[in-house]
Amino acid sequence: MNISMSERIKEFDRKLRDKEFNAFLITNPTNVYYFTNFFSRSSANLLVIPGNTPQLYIPELEYEEAQSKTRFCEVMRLEKKSEIFLEIKGELEKNQIPKVGIEDDSMNVKLYQDLTQKYQFPQLENGSGLIDDLRKVKDKEEADLIKKACQMGDKGMAIALETIEEGKTEIEIAAEVEYVVRKAGSQAIPFETIIASGYRSAFPHGSSSEKKIDRGDLIIIDLGAKCEGYCSDMTRTVVLGKPNPQQLELFNLVFKAQQSAIQNCIVGAKAEDVEVKAREILAEQNYEEYFVHSLGHGVGLDVHEYPWLSLKSKDVLMENNILTIEPGVYIPDFGGVRIEDTIVLKKSGPKILTKAKYEFEI
Amino acid sequence: MNISMSERIKEFDRKLRDKEFNAFLITNPTNVYYFTNFFSRSSANLLVIPGNTPQLYIPELEYEEAQSKTRFCEVMRLEKKSEIFLEIKGELEKNQIPKVGIEDDSMNVKLYQDLTQKYQFPQLENGSGLIDDLRKVKDKEEADLIKKACQMGDKGMAIALETIEEGKTEIEIAAEVEYVVRKAGSQAIPFETIIASGYRSAFPHGSSSEKKIDRGDLIIIDLGAKCEGYCSDMTRTVVLGKPNPQQLELFNLVFKAQQSAIQNCIVGAKAEDVEVKAREILAEQNYEEYFVHSLGHGVGLDVHEYPWLSLKSKDVLMENNILTIEPGVYIPDFGGVRIEDTIVLKKSGPKILTKAKYEFEI
Repeated sequence: MNISMSERIKEFDRKLRDKEFNAFLITNPTNVYYFTNFFSRSSANLLVIPGNTPQLYIPELEYEEAQSKTRFCEVMRLEKKSEIFLEIKGELEKNQIPKVGIEDDSMNVKLYQDLTQKYQFPQLENGSGLIDDLRKVKDKEEADLIKKACQMGDKGMAIALETIEEGKTEIEIAAEVEYVVRKAGSQAIPFETIIASGYRSAFPHGSSSEKKIDRGDLIIIDLGAKCEGYCSDMTRTVVLGKPNPQQLELFNLVFKAQQSAIQNCIVGAKAEDVEVKAREILAEQNYEEYFVHSLGHGVGLDVHEYPWLSLKSKDVLMENNILTIEPGVYIPDFGGVRIEDTIVLKKSGPKILTKAKYEFEI
Repeated sequence: MNISMSERIKEFDRKLRDKEFNAFLITNPTNVYYFTNFFSRSSANLLVIPGNTPQLYIPELEYEEAQSKTRFCEVMRLEKKSEIFLEIKGELEKNQIPKVGIEDDSMNVKLYQDLTQKYQFPQLENGSGLIDDLRKVKDKEEADLIKKACQMGDKGMAIALETIEEGKTEIEIAAEVEYVVRKAGSQAIPFETIIASGYRSAFPHGSSSEKKIDRGDLIIIDLGAKCEGYCSDMTRTVVLGKPNPQQLELFNLVFKAQQSAIQNCIVGAKAEDVEVKAREILAEQNYEEYFVHSLGHGVGLDVHEYPWLSLKSKDVLMENNILTIEPGVYIPDFGGVRIEDTIVLKKSGPKILTKAKYEFEI
């Protein structure tokens, strides 16, 4: 199932034929990047007709950059005043296309209504899943970039542990982390670095605030890096100073659940079952009800993508899935603990790509 | 037209009644934040029925945080397994609502189809414009936050000019900028800092790369900061060393177009006309065709929002609009120049909020 960059469109062509799509209009910029190596900041539209060279329709202002970056597609040079969707409609008519796939999970209602009503496109059919299926299995090029992003993230975690001290604000620590991650070559900060301390560590999505760090605080550090579009994602939780018994109990329990869940991520496992087992471990000490999110998620061009590790997931884990495992326990007014690693699934078992130590007391 | 935070929902209620919307379901997280002071990282749904207290439906994991942050709405505590959209549908039925407004420019096709088909919602009607109209006029609280974000950005620009030197990569400079901006208290980096040098300055959306900066390069520096959700946006272009005559000609021309456009931003002006006049200045020296994007945009909770300054814009400028003016000229294989400031429109005229100097030679 290893697909190299040049194979992506071929594989997508095959999927389109299998599912009897005559054409597919990709408008999600991340998916366009996946197939073309060009990320648009305005509007990119990739028309894929099986057997033809894919055509990239973009505004004039991005033509030069697209031309210099794209692979495996034709960048359409449009007249300044021409309308992209009229051009695409012309191409569909020329090829006598009766049905076009679209990404229903990212196309907005306005564009959908414009395509069907204003531009009178042929029938539109939902097909996001076809691209998700491709993207969730990483090829070597992708895995190497994620590995690099994980290494950049490791440097960020090291500096967080080094610079956390009483009286510094969470944002100050986040600034240090992002500086090091960027200096390590990260092209961007893929999500707001979370430094959530004390009572704020009980907010699963706490981001960073002007709150000052206190001695004895539980501190959740959740950070990532980005390398040529590919993200990493990692979380550690520490206590500044001596942890109290309940803090230590929480840490040990979440750590046990996390490490055991990683070992359960094997090719062929049901994603849902991995979460069920992690919850069983938390339930042993009656903390399962405080685990209020799901166990993990794929990571790649998006920080959160297929496959999903959750109770509702239909995913079965496959070779070369790259995902994070991040159980967490959050107790209002007390604090929270979350531990997360990015891992890759090989036939021989899971490999952890994020290498920061699991320290608790700093 | 100055609307204070507590007035936003009241004003929205009035607009809903005017347009005969019986209810509105807000699902764009930025719009939810605008009305509630709570930004969801998973899924937030704010149901507004004129006359009732707005209800915020969010997943269990965000309940604690939402409860601590929201104002002027009721945070609905849902059973872990309950389905948000079934709950909302129940509320709509209870209130005998025949028609619900939605944000067609952000709701995705999948959710739209789920609401209409799976959940059998009442009739959905497009209404993004109602919220855009509110958001484009900033109240004092918003203007103060944007002003703060502009000050943070000024610090970033100062450090960029200080640290640019031959042989450093664009990403290294971006790292320095973002570090200073974050240390100044910015809650996040609102968009990838652009450091685009040499041939890359000809890419209007060039971001930052591993390219090393050379003596004689045109260097575009485009950066922002974020304060409690509100963004700033500013661009300067410099040459490292002595500019050549064409570089200097370009800079002077773009600077003239930009300063003149700022002065044309007065209450009651048509956005379209402001761009036409800026283009006339560029045309005087035959550079108009190289100005491949539009003149500017509103800035607020989104970096790019209403009002739009472009040839297609229908906007008329209003008191307390906050916007950026950013003409640019991009010549393939030669380089580009863009100059951008964030400004606020007062009755007495435009005020520039970004204060970095307009240096050209560094």
